[in-house]
Amino acid sequence: MEKIDSHNIYVEPFHVDFTGYIFMGVLGNHLLNAAGNHSQRRGWGIGALNETRHTWVLSRLSVEMTRMPEQYQHCTIKTWVESVMRLFTNRNFAILDADGQPMGYARSVWAMIDVDTRRPCDLMSLYDGDILRYVVDEADNVCPIEGHGRFRFHDARLVRTLDTYYSDVDINGHVNSIKYIEHILDLFPQEDFTRGIRRFEIAYKAESYMGDRLTFYIQRNDADGSNDVEVRKNVTEDSAGDVVCQARVIFNG
Amino acid sequence: MEKIDSHNIYVEPFHVDFTGYIFMGVLGNHLLNAAGNHSQRRGWGIGALNETRHTWVLSRLSVEMTRMPEQYQHCTIKTWVESVMRLFTNRNFAILDADGQPMGYARSVWAMIDVDTRRPCDLMSLYDGDILRYVVDEADNVCPIEGHGRFRFHDARLVRTLDTYYSDVDINGHVNSIKYIEHILDLFPQEDFTRGIRRFEIAYKAESYMGDRLTFYIQRNDADGSNDVEVRKNVTEDSAGDVVCQARVIFNG
Repeated sequence: MEKIDSHNIYVEPFHVDFTGYIFMGVLGNHLLNAAGNHSQRRGWGIGALNETRHTWVLSRLSVEMTRMPEQYQHCTIKTWVESVMRLFTNRNFAILDADGQPMGYARSVWAMIDVDTRRPCDLMSLYDGDILRYVVDEADNVCPIEGHGRFRFHDARLVRTLDTYYSDVDINGHVNSIKYIEHILDLFPQEDFTRGIRRFEIAYKAESYMGDRLTFYIQRNDADGSNDVEVRKNVTEDSAGDVVCQARVIFNG
Repeated sequence: MEKIDSHNIYVEPFHVDFTGYIFMGVLGNHLLNAAGNHSQRRGWGIGALNETRHTWVLSRLSVEMTRMPEQYQHCTIKTWVESVMRLFTNRNFAILDADGQPMGYARSVWAMIDVDTRRPCDLMSLYDGDILRYVVDEADNVCPIEGHGRFRFHDARLVRTLDTYYSDVDINGHVNSIKYIEHILDLFPQEDFTRGIRRFEIAYKAESYMGDRLTFYIQRNDADGSNDVEVRKNVTEDSAGDVVCQARVIFNG
């Protein structure tokens, strides 16, 4: 089987924002579907993994676009495994227009966990290291965007607190990865989206659940115009709570 | 051209709720896509209409399911025009499983408006009444669910106020039809969804925009176990504001 998969997407009317370009959350959903299909076709999708009580957990996602897909546009997402370490695997994506021209790229990091203990597993030993057969050498398929950044919060400002509800959670009862992207982008004013998002990064740190109250903090980095967002749960007067995820949003200049 | 279209859908992982069944909002989105494609293929989609500065506006949607589509399921939505009046057209839907067995049905009401004046147009005169050629006689294709109900609020209780943000609005800058469904269902506790939704109805009354504060009221009807929801904007201490939409939610008993 090929190492690289192509996943076709179509940009539906309700999946674009007020500028007519796809929501970053919807694009993220397409990327996760492409990843899921790629894994499934090779025998280590979440369905197969579930038989041995394992599952994939998304740890990082960074998307960098030169053009966002537009309403009614047909695009293709290519995805492949860049590398496999003991506890993490790097999966990359290219988003191509109908002519095969790149519109942007994405990087992601995944861990595999034991569903019962919630502890990470050794990817090298899974299915006798079968996943290694599909690693695409960087030289053969470049993902020309920066790696995942590091977050250092020292001057973050509390900007919103919100409760999570029925629509926020997935089949596991966790607030879903895409909903965090929506809630984070909802922190920004309309003008920013008129310019468009150049790069979006997110690091998932802990799960939250239906009914959890999430607190959002923003730290603006004037040097490069990026905005770092930290999401915490269980924040009280006496406690800083727990970090749920961290994100970086860079709008076009 | 046939009068009835078939629109295939696939239930993606992030499109199901904690019970593993499709979110009503996502199903609603599929219905609207099916409607859009049906219109477009016959020459009166919103793209074509835009040339004469007209557009479709969804006025009512009622969905009644005996089974909800499940994660990874392939289903088909059939859609057809049931009737056309001067200012409204009735469009029906059947949701079928992979074996062609009905899982549920939906009814919708649409108006056509002039984009500039926002006033309704005469559907009989549009394209010389072309739409009448596609009306499917009720006797030939039954939609065996009740028509749209009437709302009478006399004892509604304020249950939530929320601000609308970037993710709520569509390409027209309006809070999108699907987001109302999400926000309305988010008013209910988890237990209700364990039983599942039997019927969902919504009546769209006025547009709201990014930044509008929406106020939600619930009126429980003990006689039939239905829950009526009214959504208002611009509610102040001195004003009851304007009705944006009204919905009825009936969970399985």
